[in-house]
Amino acid sequence: MGRWQPDARARLQAAALALYGERGYEETTVAEIAERAGLTKRTFFRYFTDKREVLFWGSELLEQQMVAAIEAAPASASALGMIGAALDAAAVRFEEAREFARPRHRIIASSRELQERELIKAASLAAAMTKALRARGLGDPAAALAAWTGMSVMHIAFEQWVDDPNRTPFNQIASDALAQLRDIAATG
Amino acid sequence: MGRWQPDARARLQAAALALYGERGYEETTVAEIAERAGLTKRTFFRYFTDKREVLFWGSELLEQQMVAAIEAAPASASALGMIGAALDAAAVRFEEAREFARPRHRIIASSRELQERELIKAASLAAAMTKALRARGLGDPAAALAAWTGMSVMHIAFEQWVDDPNRTPFNQIASDALAQLRDIAATG
Repeated sequence: MGRWQPDARARLQAAALALYGERGYEETTVAEIAERAGLTKRTFFRYFTDKREVLFWGSELLEQQMVAAIEAAPASASALGMIGAALDAAAVRFEEAREFARPRHRIIASSRELQERELIKAASLAAAMTKALRARGLGDPAAALAAWTGMSVMHIAFEQWVDDPNRTPFNQIASDALAQLRDIAATG
Repeated sequence: MGRWQPDARARLQAAALALYGERGYEETTVAEIAERAGLTKRTFFRYFTDKREVLFWGSELLEQQMVAAIEAAPASASALGMIGAALDAAAVRFEEAREFARPRHRIIASSRELQERELIKAASLAAAMTKALRARGLGDPAAALAAWTGMSVMHIAFEQWVDDPNRTPFNQIASDALAQLRDIAATG
């Protein structure tokens, strides 16, 4: 079992999500996750630092890709245009993990500790986007306003996407929400 | 010492903030806070459930007053107009506690646990404002978008206000930030 396992990470994630859903997050142990995945605890710890990290794996990459999208936006892009580009980058990641997204969302909602962790990750992402928008020439507080507004749109679009029976793509929901935000701002 | 103490709550808050700043939040005990305030531990627990609550006392009232401002806004008010009214209500509370705001902000920034608590309170406030905006006739996701945008403006205005050497009033900073948000949305 010490050898490299194909798809070990995905198998461990699937096993963890299944067990968290069946027994609850608190009650599940790393040993049980490894067993369900047909792997060892040692293999688990090669991929994740602890059972919480299974749920938050990939968030650094998400942040990097959203920041990269802001950096790569055309020179003519507006602040919300750059936010839209970052949300499109997020959409790619979300769609890849669509099957994990719903059970993950439910498990996080069940635990105060996990919710707090999720909010800290969101604040870190907002800070990274603020920095990237500043580097693109936005002043203060415009950079932070645009970044936090983008986080709000992402949060609301995610809630809609994760429970959408029609499986509307995330980038469409997010772009509709951005358009609605423009309307709200225009009439207010 | 069992009798009612004038200003006991404010004395306990001042003592707690001073001690958290001097020794750190983790290292300070309730007994030390009470002693510094010239009161008993029993009196402390009449006002606060624990030493963390000293920092978050008043957040329910803040939420109620922001919701009440949305409810009381004129029928003609736009979504961002209602958010502006809620921010004006917050401004009154913030200015009352201006002397506490800066040390409190620094202490919260020093502790992951306190930051997480602060973010949970913000999420609760956003949910309450979403509900109030829905009751004022906003649809979904417009209500949530407006509420979360309002939270973003509040967060960014607060960061600016709390460290402002010119002591610009919160409601002015918030209203400038709202105006800037309209500009961002109009050009994007």
